[in-house]
Amino acid sequence: MKKRIAILPGDGIGPEVCDAATKVLTEISRLYKHEFEFTYGDLGGVAIDSSGTPLPEETLSICKQSDAVLLGAVGGPKWDTLPGDKRPEKGLLGLRKELDLFANLRPVTIYDALAEASPLKDEIIQGVDLVIVRELTGGLYFGEPRERRGVGEEEVAVDTLVYSRKEIERIVRKGFEFAEVRGGALTSVDKANVLESSRLWREVVEEVAKEFPEISYSHMLVDNAAMQLIRNPKQFDVIVTENMFGDILSDEASMITGSLGMLPSASLSQDGPGLFEPIHGSAPDIAGKGIANPLATLSSVVMMLTYAFQMTDEAQALSEAINDVLENGYRTADLTQDEKTALSTVEMTEKVIDAL
Amino acid sequence: MKKRIAILPGDGIGPEVCDAATKVLTEISRLYKHEFEFTYGDLGGVAIDSSGTPLPEETLSICKQSDAVLLGAVGGPKWDTLPGDKRPEKGLLGLRKELDLFANLRPVTIYDALAEASPLKDEIIQGVDLVIVRELTGGLYFGEPRERRGVGEEEVAVDTLVYSRKEIERIVRKGFEFAEVRGGALTSVDKANVLESSRLWREVVEEVAKEFPEISYSHMLVDNAAMQLIRNPKQFDVIVTENMFGDILSDEASMITGSLGMLPSASLSQDGPGLFEPIHGSAPDIAGKGIANPLATLSSVVMMLTYAFQMTDEAQALSEAINDVLENGYRTADLTQDEKTALSTVEMTEKVIDAL
Ligand SMILES: CC(C)[C@H](C(=O)O)[C@@H](O)C(=O)O
Ligand SMILES: CC(C)[C@H](C(=O)O)[C@@H](O)C(=O)O
Repeated sequence: MKKRIAILPGDGIGPEVCDAATKVLTEISRLYKHEFEFTYGDLGGVAIDSSGTPLPEETLSICKQSDAVLLGAVGGPKWDTLPGDKRPEKGLLGLRKELDLFANLRPVTIYDALAEASPLKDEIIQGVDLVIVRELTGGLYFGEPRERRGVGEEEVAVDTLVYSRKEIERIVRKGFEFAEVRGGALTSVDKANVLESSRLWREVVEEVAKEFPEISYSHMLVDNAAMQLIRNPKQFDVIVTENMFGDILSDEASMITGSLGMLPSASLSQDGPGLFEPIHGSAPDIAGKGIANPLATLSSVVMMLTYAFQMTDEAQALSEAINDVLENGYRTADLTQDEKTALSTVEMTEKVIDAL
Repeated sequence: MKKRIAILPGDGIGPEVCDAATKVLTEISRLYKHEFEFTYGDLGGVAIDSSGTPLPEETLSICKQSDAVLLGAVGGPKWDTLPGDKRPEKGLLGLRKELDLFANLRPVTIYDALAEASPLKDEIIQGVDLVIVRELTGGLYFGEPRERRGVGEEEVAVDTLVYSRKEIERIVRKGFEFAEVRGGALTSVDKANVLESSRLWREVVEEVAKEFPEISYSHMLVDNAAMQLIRNPKQFDVIVTENMFGDILSDEASMITGSLGMLPSASLSQDGPGLFEPIHGSAPDIAGKGIANPLATLSSVVMMLTYAFQMTDEAQALSEAINDVLENGYRTADLTQDEKTALSTVEMTEKVIDAL
């Protein structure tokens, strides 16, 4: 098969981990007789520097003409003092909206070889395997009005949490679909005892549930979910929730593993190209040193192969290769105390390619 | 001194833990020659049953005429199917607003004797001592409009996140004041890379900081805070944040201790009566069995003695008494695996009174 992939390296360690991904994709194309065509675009800080805007038109059009988008990371101290609408993150938010990437998937799985890095006790995390399905193009992130009003002490700032029935329906349906594929259960997280939008959310969950009579589901309040994720994460399979709650809970959940450098994400639309990126940030402190852990990005490639290209054999092979290198004790600097044995980004990538 | 205390037992185990509190307060009045006058009022489900509304006028006026309010807990399955504005929680939200309880304090401290109950590893939690200062009368909880609009697929639900400069100022100032008293540092949590209200929040923090030149402070994004609370909770001293973020983060933080039955809270206004309550819920499953853990409520009494009455010796004595009973191995059912040795609510209360 031939697939066009937009590569947006972005800032900090983004270019280094994207290099790892293109190398691995090239190896996969060789092994499985595919053709992957890479087109590069600027996003975030690097785009601000080159063209004065975090999401240039050209980048957007490259993405729209692709079958999938791979993103490294955006942001860094250099651009932190710019006004809100000129900041690197704005490029990412714009891309989510423009590509209608309403479904953000963040799987949390424990690698046995890394379990000891978790701040949680072993018996709490053994066997955790959950995925957070976060709504990504609505709610407080995009609602209008979002503005300042008035002056002096009476000045107010306003954000709007708004969801339509349609927006809730499509993300909740995704949640049920994933629960179905995984043979699992769905937990819908809201704050229905306080928010009007959460009460509509709950209503819609009840309706969509009728399409999935064989899937068991429940509602949980967001404050309780924040507790339960630490108390007993094994109770969860698929969690579906709105944008801001998903932002907070998925970062909380990522800590269960203790190794942020391992976690991938996918952001999907109904039928356009999806976006795949590691959940870690641009890590400006180690950028350019060649020591970044590429495995979160390579796991994002697994998600790309699965969700964008339906290449399940290829996805499985890459996923097993990642597992193998970990089982064989290979570690980047973030995964080990022992600096001397730590592999560079390039070395780790080669180990994965060997294991393929 | 003479102090009037409004007692709102509420639902579930509320009456049992409030009984524990009044007994202990009575003992303190005897020992330290104070006069505590208790006036009882209905709130939550019990109020819905007796007078059709979760916050009766009479209850409100009892509270307003008191020097402090002690609340047990509200809510339960019996009232879960009522419409939003008739539910027990609405009584609590109404009381917060009517008494202008804008500052919610939730301390998280580790009792050495209970540390093993935490889902987090010992080295992560040893020495944790933080307090979350949550804004309690603004933001998404009360902003207008909050409504449904439109019909069918296009129906939307709206909530409004609004903060005025004045509202932010007073809670941020409380945050700095607590950091000052504790000799510590302040972390202000927001989502300034996305929310207009958070950008105003950050501006106000910068301004109020000038009044406290000797206090070190920093800003942290809420998603990062959700991670850091698990990764390394010791880094925090005082956390100040808006209402919804505070709801989520303080419940998450409560799990650090692993013993929800131990944690108190205080909700303070500028100069009216404060409200003191355990953070645990009404626990309908064990209500009426006489086995509820009264220690969170007794710790809330410690906060009442401290913040409402400035009775620091009395507060310290009660706090030490609670510590002593734990060090001596006394446990209620929620704190032990060994049912046979578990104390009842009344027995545990007597142990605390003995230790006083
Ligand atoms: C960078 C920021 C705007 C973004 C978000 O809040 O969505 C990030 O935290 C994420 O989770 O992808
Ligand atoms: C009962 C509910 C409305 C309340 C809140 O969200 O504030 C509770 O979770 C709390 O934290 O006191």
